[in-house]
Amino acid sequence: MPQFLSTTDADFAPRFAALLEMKREDAPEVDDIVARIIADVRARGDAAVIELTERFDRLSLTPETLAFSPAEIAAAIDKVPGPERAALELAAARIRTYHERQRPADAEWTDPSGATLGWRWTAVEAAGLYVPGGLASYPSSVLMNAIPAQVAGVKRLVMCAPTPGGVVNPLVLLAAHLSGIDTIYRIGGAQAVAAMAYGTATITPVDKITGPGNAFVAAAKRRVFGKVGIDMIAGPSEILVVADADNDPDWIALDLLSQAEHDESAQSILITTDAAFGQAVAAAVDKRLETLDRRAIAGASWRDYGAIVTVRDLSEAAALTDRIAPEHLELCVADPVALSQTITHAGAIFLGQWTPEAIGDYIGGPNHVLPTARSARFSSGLSVLDFMKRTTLARMTPEALKSIGPAAETLAASESLEAHGLSVGARLARLNRKGGEDTGA
Amino acid sequence: MPQFLSTTDADFAPRFAALLEMKREDAPEVDDIVARIIADVRARGDAAVIELTERFDRLSLTPETLAFSPAEIAAAIDKVPGPERAALELAAARIRTYHERQRPADAEWTDPSGATLGWRWTAVEAAGLYVPGGLASYPSSVLMNAIPAQVAGVKRLVMCAPTPGGVVNPLVLLAAHLSGIDTIYRIGGAQAVAAMAYGTATITPVDKITGPGNAFVAAAKRRVFGKVGIDMIAGPSEILVVADADNDPDWIALDLLSQAEHDESAQSILITTDAAFGQAVAAAVDKRLETLDRRAIAGASWRDYGAIVTVRDLSEAAALTDRIAPEHLELCVADPVALSQTITHAGAIFLGQWTPEAIGDYIGGPNHVLPTARSARFSSGLSVLDFMKRTTLARMTPEALKSIGPAAETLAASESLEAHGLSVGARLARLNRKGGEDTGA
Repeated sequence: MPQFLSTTDADFAPRFAALLEMKREDAPEVDDIVARIIADVRARGDAAVIELTERFDRLSLTPETLAFSPAEIAAAIDKVPGPERAALELAAARIRTYHERQRPADAEWTDPSGATLGWRWTAVEAAGLYVPGGLASYPSSVLMNAIPAQVAGVKRLVMCAPTPGGVVNPLVLLAAHLSGIDTIYRIGGAQAVAAMAYGTATITPVDKITGPGNAFVAAAKRRVFGKVGIDMIAGPSEILVVADADNDPDWIALDLLSQAEHDESAQSILITTDAAFGQAVAAAVDKRLETLDRRAIAGASWRDYGAIVTVRDLSEAAALTDRIAPEHLELCVADPVALSQTITHAGAIFLGQWTPEAIGDYIGGPNHVLPTARSARFSSGLSVLDFMKRTTLARMTPEALKSIGPAAETLAASESLEAHGLSVGARLARLNRKGGEDTGA
Repeated sequence: MPQFLSTTDADFAPRFAALLEMKREDAPEVDDIVARIIADVRARGDAAVIELTERFDRLSLTPETLAFSPAEIAAAIDKVPGPERAALELAAARIRTYHERQRPADAEWTDPSGATLGWRWTAVEAAGLYVPGGLASYPSSVLMNAIPAQVAGVKRLVMCAPTPGGVVNPLVLLAAHLSGIDTIYRIGGAQAVAAMAYGTATITPVDKITGPGNAFVAAAKRRVFGKVGIDMIAGPSEILVVADADNDPDWIALDLLSQAEHDESAQSILITTDAAFGQAVAAAVDKRLETLDRRAIAGASWRDYGAIVTVRDLSEAAALTDRIAPEHLELCVADPVALSQTITHAGAIFLGQWTPEAIGDYIGGPNHVLPTARSARFSSGLSVLDFMKRTTLARMTPEALKSIGPAAETLAASESLEAHGLSVGARLARLNRKGGEDTGA
């Protein structure tokens, strides 16, 4: 049974605070193991990766078979049925169209001093995408990670996907093919992250690593951060639905369950202006849980972390939403756009009752890699920007240096950085000697 | 004596590779100590912060005196001489003007399916700036960290700056005042980072922490990452100057020394098309090192990490530059713009001989917080974007859901996520029953 809260309860404040602080992830202490695996891969390269894959994935590889061959990929892709292929192609096209709008603009201007200023965006040269094996091996995640990199202009895109016991998901390979991935390694865990970050004889290192993974993968990403760039460290998924009474309780129940079925640690919360509607949704969830394939997982998530919060009005709903800073936010109210404009912290907003969150997982266009665990307060979903970086540009003319250089000299002196000041002063001295002549910039 | 390399040397490749791999930072193993400090601050709050400040900074504080009072700030600011104040004000104005151009645009469009898609940028609510004490307590860094946050629209901006023995730099307080910082705590180290991330009775937690610091501060930022956002983990500063023979060797020497004087671990590299010019710069550095105030620091940096690389032509220079991926890049050649367009990886580029890098440290406008240790391959300097986050938006109409919903159902089935598919299917069933009537979105 989920928690029922109401803002009119006397104990609402502490109970809501406890809901926010709830620790849903029982992250095992794997940091020491991961440190040893990374050191091993750095020291012994391919040999370490192959041994660890044998041990963890029961799969015997050689340097030659670390990556799938083009023939293996083609054969697997051929097995994908037509409807799945068409759906994946539509998803890829829509995700690409959305992300193409995210390409940032370069800038250059000349300011009143005569200085030319600006910046230029360029793509990361090589990116590596981690795709989990087993249950969470989702072709949609391949698209969501790889297409932004491809749109950014990343030249070399590789993927690591463990295949425990050699089992491969053909849709994952098709998704990789559709999103421009060059090479797919059948390795996983901290060893895959280490190999992508530091390289081995067979695996060329990349500059940026993204993608979800278990506690080992998360710890490895945290450790290689700095040597390479990483995306966020993802936690279990969350949804918050804000709904008034003018909704079908079954639809809202299914939306809540579509997060709950991901993971026992997932969290689904309903905020509603109508307590009876909240009860109706709870009943609809229970009914769906009788038959849902993944009822064990979804039921545990709903029981342990689910919550239904009754509020007096939508302004209370907006304030609580900002405190939750949900990964996914569905606004099933009469004017969802107006409500969305009163909310600041959310990874993705789904507006209106015709926009179930699952649309965003697959086919809407926006990215489904989103900030979890209240990190929407300070971070964003994956985007083209994650695979680009900005170089700032500055060019002084002699006149510009004359105009602003003396202030730099003053500040350098105040920070006791003499050479900083002299590097400006030596140039100003020349200008002053020559009276500004003969100084073509 | 710096290293001299030439691309025509037989052993150039391994020597250049060794230069890239050079470990300049002797980061002490402080992670365990930092973990204990963070746990202590989380458990005991103000009391822990006060005890640790007493121990590390020889300063006795109370909850009431953790922050500077407005009167203390006003009194300190009054001591700043006119020229310093004017220089800092000019710097603040130029930095603000540059960063105002970085404000990102929201987007919203309707696609052919009838779906409305887009995104919206909002500011982080509260940000905390760390400012080191002692030698590296730079007012310019306060401006460079705080102004982007202010321009982003951050509502609450706090600063932590340790004052060992109670010594305060009035210019740091003036810089904080000029850049909209609300509260300044006289605390530092891992305890300051922990207090900003988790909060204490006196210190309200923030959502994002930025700013440079020593090994303790860096380890603490790495540990609180996830609970709050952080900027990069900065390493020692670097400059790469690419210069042809048509330069004053003394100017280039001063530019190299303006990085070397920061820190014994800083690195200054010259790439030149003219070996004799390289020798002339080396001689000019030696001459300046005879008298420079910080000659001990700058001399050690130049001796241990300095390098002069002679190349055959500027295309070789560009290729080596991309491998170095320098934090600061000065292009002192006849056509610096053309050369810059052949280079992909650099934090900031300073174009032409009239743009010494020190201009960028203080007054140019672009940010001086830049990616070090080759991380310009995948990351950018600090910007307004670091203090904002993007919420993606999607709104389906019944027609749009009819058009793309079935593909989402197919993909949900292929990923065995039944509730995902049902949340779409239940809505499509209603639409099909009603033939699309009575379904105002």
